[in-house]
Amino acid sequence: MTTWKMAARAEKMNPSVLREILKVTDLPGIISLAGGLPSPKTFPISAFADACAHVLANDGAAALQYAASEGYGPLRQAVADMLPWDVDPAQVLITTGSQQGLDLVAKVLIDPGSRVLVETPTYLGALQAFSPMEPTPVSVASDDEGVIVEDLVAKARGTAGAASEDAARFIYLLPNFQNPTGRTMSEARRAAVSAAAKAANLPIIEDNPYGDLWFDEAPPLPLTARNPEGCIYLGSFSKVLAPGLRLGFLVAPKAIYPKLLQAKQAVDLHTPIFTQRMVVEVMKDGFLARHVPTIRALYKRQRDAMAAALTREMKGLDVTFNAPIGGMFMWARLPEGIDTVKLLPKAVARGVAFVPGAPFYADGQGDPRTLRLSFVTASVEEIDTAIAALAATLREQLAHDAAARVQRELAAT
Amino acid sequence: MTTWKMAARAEKMNPSVLREILKVTDLPGIISLAGGLPSPKTFPISAFADACAHVLANDGAAALQYAASEGYGPLRQAVADMLPWDVDPAQVLITTGSQQGLDLVAKVLIDPGSRVLVETPTYLGALQAFSPMEPTPVSVASDDEGVIVEDLVAKARGTAGAASEDAARFIYLLPNFQNPTGRTMSEARRAAVSAAAKAANLPIIEDNPYGDLWFDEAPPLPLTARNPEGCIYLGSFSKVLAPGLRLGFLVAPKAIYPKLLQAKQAVDLHTPIFTQRMVVEVMKDGFLARHVPTIRALYKRQRDAMAAALTREMKGLDVTFNAPIGGMFMWARLPEGIDTVKLLPKAVARGVAFVPGAPFYADGQGDPRTLRLSFVTASVEEIDTAIAALAATLREQLAHDAAARVQRELAAT
Repeated sequence: MTTWKMAARAEKMNPSVLREILKVTDLPGIISLAGGLPSPKTFPISAFADACAHVLANDGAAALQYAASEGYGPLRQAVADMLPWDVDPAQVLITTGSQQGLDLVAKVLIDPGSRVLVETPTYLGALQAFSPMEPTPVSVASDDEGVIVEDLVAKARGTAGAASEDAARFIYLLPNFQNPTGRTMSEARRAAVSAAAKAANLPIIEDNPYGDLWFDEAPPLPLTARNPEGCIYLGSFSKVLAPGLRLGFLVAPKAIYPKLLQAKQAVDLHTPIFTQRMVVEVMKDGFLARHVPTIRALYKRQRDAMAAALTREMKGLDVTFNAPIGGMFMWARLPEGIDTVKLLPKAVARGVAFVPGAPFYADGQGDPRTLRLSFVTASVEEIDTAIAALAATLREQLAHDAAARVQRELAAT
Repeated sequence: MTTWKMAARAEKMNPSVLREILKVTDLPGIISLAGGLPSPKTFPISAFADACAHVLANDGAAALQYAASEGYGPLRQAVADMLPWDVDPAQVLITTGSQQGLDLVAKVLIDPGSRVLVETPTYLGALQAFSPMEPTPVSVASDDEGVIVEDLVAKARGTAGAASEDAARFIYLLPNFQNPTGRTMSEARRAAVSAAAKAANLPIIEDNPYGDLWFDEAPPLPLTARNPEGCIYLGSFSKVLAPGLRLGFLVAPKAIYPKLLQAKQAVDLHTPIFTQRMVVEVMKDGFLARHVPTIRALYKRQRDAMAAALTREMKGLDVTFNAPIGGMFMWARLPEGIDTVKLLPKAVARGVAFVPGAPFYADGQGDPRTLRLSFVTASVEEIDTAIAALAATLREQLAHDAAARVQRELAAT
């Protein structure tokens, strides 16, 4: 019987809390507001079918052969053209989903124990991608506009100042329609964060998977546009085309690009070239300019429906929530005494699933009253049904807690 | 100006020697025997076109949505069914190319400084995949039948025996038609290696990308089939279908599978589901049983052509080479005094490219006379032309060296 001696980093790996939760909630009859699954209504299936046929008929051999680790030239060019600052296609690296960009960043920038700054709360998948390189994640205090600059500055520097060995390696930020909170960093905050990071010599990893999904107006310029040499920018085709292709990209300064490329070569040689060519074919003739507005309109309707349902169904309860100006997620906070982890199985029993908020806090000090609600997968009718079920679950729990309190008080007297 | 502090592992990363060489050789007019590119003639383009159309028409939404990290159920089942031992589909993890399997193995099994045993020479891509986790690769002496058991046993144990901290973490083996040498581990050697590894508590990472490409008879049973609990098996669809899809898999014992899965989730959430469904669709009705024999026949003809051309063109020179019984690569050794790294630019000037053998040796002590020749990408006619050009390059070099020797001798007298 062979015993497998594992690496120290593997001993520390834990199953994704979120994945474990989602398994439980992925049952027939449950309306899931949990996962971040784009609405399949938005997948341009017939455009993909045409693109597959075209690519295989015209460039079949090249589309099925090994290809460059950097990515397909025309796709790198298309990415550079899409972005709102001056990007050299040579700085674009095509990744197997933007999640892979996080893995590459971690490999190239994190030593065991490196301090890595994140928002409060932050995207759980980023913490998981960084974790094998054994960083020390540090939560930077955050408000409705994003990270608070004073706390960023205080936590960026090492014990002996900005250049010291233990200075933070980078800050990971998701400025647009953040996962999990849905919040957007304001123009003023972006300007301040960008200036402070530059002054503190703190690289920014800017993750922007949802940026195109704005409802009324485009969000402010990315942080990377303000200081391209100090930022790595991560983007994705998952939300504007389809996640099942696993196509993302990163844009990196020339100082760091070659190392990210070497890491990329080592992990999977290159991103599937067939899907890269499919996407170039789909995007030609300005497809995204016609397609993305249809996604925005759909998600806006569903956000409105969810906000209306929450207002209606949670009336009289101490429930707060935001109304994000884009993206996929709403963030809510339930009355005092409620623990959303414990509430979840009861909600599932009533046919609705959500994600508890606590796992999104890097320091393990999550607010147990919070939860994340996705408004993109379920239809307006399903959202109405689900929020009513959630409110019923909550009222029952509150009644149960009140009864228990009375009993305890009676027992004590 | 932001300065980027890199991780120690990144400081040590170097550009792939092989990639750098291949860039130089990838010029118009050059016949490349260098890269390991499957012949595009073998890509079943129309079967893929039918499969794409079918998948998008029938399961478009599911094929474009996020999917399970483990891989697509029917593909995991197909892999289990394909393998010649009893495999539970729950042990199959679909990877973004088998290269990704190496990255996951490294993350889960290698601590900085861990001793990792490899063949002499070994697959360069494996060394690159392991490298970010900072192992100490150790070359095990090898002959025409594979690694030598006595040396394996000696190098497996740590200073304080098999269970000690510094015992080797695993041995990485490519038993069928090895890259770069083309050699195949004999049945007797497999039995001995399997027994010795088991006795030494040494896990085996068995890489088998070429196993289906046998010419006259199937190779002996995989090592994993002999001791599944002691092995991780890596396989690929790159050589039997197409590399541009980046589809591979691993089979791992239950003791280690969950950690590999967690590492997989963190690196790219899951392998593209669209291509997984495409491949399941292509493979139905026994497609591979009809298709793979056509690849074998083509590569066998080209191997024969290369062996005949080498025999013919290198006549009278002290050149040795093997005639692999499958796979993609032939391994040759040129006369004393020749350094294939220095010969390469001269060969390229005559219109032929190859890969020098030295970079494939983990300990940097490579034999400078060796080179790897791929017989799969070039046609029979191109192989004839290329080997003639290589022989001309070699004869010119030998004449040049002889003249230089005479001059030196004259100068010395």
